[in-house]
Amino acid sequence: MTMRDPILLTPGPLTTTLQTKTAMLKDWGSWDADFNAVTADVCQRLTALIDGERDFVCVPLQGSGTFAVEAAVGTLLPRDGKLLVLVNGAYGKRLARLTEMMGRAVSVLDFGETAPVDPARVAAALAGDATISHVGVIYCETSTGILNPLAEIAGVVARAGRRLIIDAMSALGALPLSAQEIAFDAVIASSNKCLEGVPGMGFVLARRERLQQAMGNAHSLSLDLHDQWTYMQKTGQWRYTPPTHVVAALQAALDQYDAEGGRPARLARYQANCEALIQGLRELGLQPFLPAEIQAPIIITVHAPAVPAYRFGDLYQRVKDRGFVLYPGKLTEVETFRVGCIGAIGSAEIAQAVHAIGDALAELGAACGRPK
Amino acid sequence: MTMRDPILLTPGPLTTTLQTKTAMLKDWGSWDADFNAVTADVCQRLTALIDGERDFVCVPLQGSGTFAVEAAVGTLLPRDGKLLVLVNGAYGKRLARLTEMMGRAVSVLDFGETAPVDPARVAAALAGDATISHVGVIYCETSTGILNPLAEIAGVVARAGRRLIIDAMSALGALPLSAQEIAFDAVIASSNKCLEGVPGMGFVLARRERLQQAMGNAHSLSLDLHDQWTYMQKTGQWRYTPPTHVVAALQAALDQYDAEGGRPARLARYQANCEALIQGLRELGLQPFLPAEIQAPIIITVHAPAVPAYRFGDLYQRVKDRGFVLYPGKLTEVETFRVGCIGAIGSAEIAQAVHAIGDALAELGAACGRPK
Repeated sequence: MTMRDPILLTPGPLTTTLQTKTAMLKDWGSWDADFNAVTADVCQRLTALIDGERDFVCVPLQGSGTFAVEAAVGTLLPRDGKLLVLVNGAYGKRLARLTEMMGRAVSVLDFGETAPVDPARVAAALAGDATISHVGVIYCETSTGILNPLAEIAGVVARAGRRLIIDAMSALGALPLSAQEIAFDAVIASSNKCLEGVPGMGFVLARRERLQQAMGNAHSLSLDLHDQWTYMQKTGQWRYTPPTHVVAALQAALDQYDAEGGRPARLARYQANCEALIQGLRELGLQPFLPAEIQAPIIITVHAPAVPAYRFGDLYQRVKDRGFVLYPGKLTEVETFRVGCIGAIGSAEIAQAVHAIGDALAELGAACGRPK
Repeated sequence: MTMRDPILLTPGPLTTTLQTKTAMLKDWGSWDADFNAVTADVCQRLTALIDGERDFVCVPLQGSGTFAVEAAVGTLLPRDGKLLVLVNGAYGKRLARLTEMMGRAVSVLDFGETAPVDPARVAAALAGDATISHVGVIYCETSTGILNPLAEIAGVVARAGRRLIIDAMSALGALPLSAQEIAFDAVIASSNKCLEGVPGMGFVLARRERLQQAMGNAHSLSLDLHDQWTYMQKTGQWRYTPPTHVVAALQAALDQYDAEGGRPARLARYQANCEALIQGLRELGLQPFLPAEIQAPIIITVHAPAVPAYRFGDLYQRVKDRGFVLYPGKLTEVETFRVGCIGAIGSAEIAQAVHAIGDALAELGAACGRPK
């Protein structure tokens, strides 16, 4: 067993620093100028992440990332619009489902669970259906860890004269995403992924001009980003009770993000984590599910050890007893598990995690070729 | 100026104990059995608050209390149902608005801003419109602090064969509310009111039988309580990323709630706070807006000092400089401000707050008859 709190090898909630967590040891008045200043600072810095200072606004939203995704679609997609969703995993499917549930027209282009989105097929789909007004895509599909070719997709969508909504949940802050380089109307992410805050809020970076035109689109008062933004502009406050402690923790996390060196440094750390993890797992006889060229440095899907007695729950518990929390697989046809490489973790934690997985496998009598 | 963090005299977010906040100094895996146990414990204890163990289930939801209110209506009101909303303040108006926005039929019975709901008028409205299937009411209307006569309203609704949805946001945990005593289908509240947790989640205590029949009602995936509950029953997990730190803080707050002596002790403390506050304000020459018999011991609306130079912002800043955060008024026709009496505060804090308000008023040259 381990005495310290476990380290989360999960795609968020993830391990945060003590500095981030201690930022929650203060109660804030949600009406107070001091808290409004925190919100304004966080929003300004989130907008800067995508080089969006000129054309974009940040609308924070209470709830998980999915709430923000639903709010973005519900607010930005006109009632008579139609969303083409590019699906290669659970989050793409969820995007299609929430659009359908709110009663909007939706069309799905499915690429299976193991291939990235193919921009040529997107171009063909757009050419074949003039009623599609918007396209929705998941930048990094966390079900597998697939990196979708965002720049190419954005190019195809822009050339077809359609508008792009990007779910960048497990990407923003680490992977490249600049409004100066690609065209889109909205990017959605949350506090508790690559920015390494705690969970409880999402946010939408929306093109100001589009948001201004979005009054009356929303199917939901709570999820109406136009209303949230209008109120915030007028008062500096969130419309409804904000998760004050979570917002303060995000501000602290952004301080550390800047101190680390911003996006290049964050990406470099995650890449190093990812490479060390893949190499270590290979040395244990475990095989990553994705080829390297479509593997995002966020979360790694690993084939289950080919041992008859293997059960994920056994591996999970034994690795957790050693202080690391794994993540289950999400594929329907292949037995896998997942290991995240994001969060406040570096090479030492990755090395220790690999040892813990190896020791657990050895204990399970399933060391898969690793010498004891 | 004050060196310590300000004490919040606000209706939530409010002042929490350090014990509650330090419960957030740990990262939880949202898939992990340890966190599932926290969720299960919190839900079981919230259900017990209304003596609902037999017939009710607790469905927690990410976001602010308003998200949970919208989710309750969207899930429990059938698509062809009609909600009669009893309005005597901003929260009643919001309940009507969110119901209308999701495209359901809604009817409003308005009692103004200064009177409690009149059960006789509710009975007449129900007798006059057979299409009304549900009634929505705010137990304690935080806009003014009015206590609505919940037992009488519930009796009227039950006798008319309609179903009741109660927004008990600023009431649950302090004011009486028992499923053994009155009839209702759902009670909605949040972590950061009388239970003294931090903001970031709401919850709905729903009659199991009604929730079971609610599949397919919801207008929103994120706000679909039937889906949230079904998933949670199957997996023990929240459907989407939970605000893990907020949930852990609520569990810690419930531990302290029990240790204090549960609802009777919590109510007694709030009543003592309320009485001391009203008496202290009267001695400063300030008049409470509501008569005592409809004043809930949650938040007090106070007439602005009758001084030409008075501006709330001035008073607010001077009281804040002394370490207490007031709350603005929310009435449309009368100049008021509000002072909350809930949160981790007792007689000492109330006495100090009264002194701070008095000193601030004296400094403003508006002591309203208080001897200097």
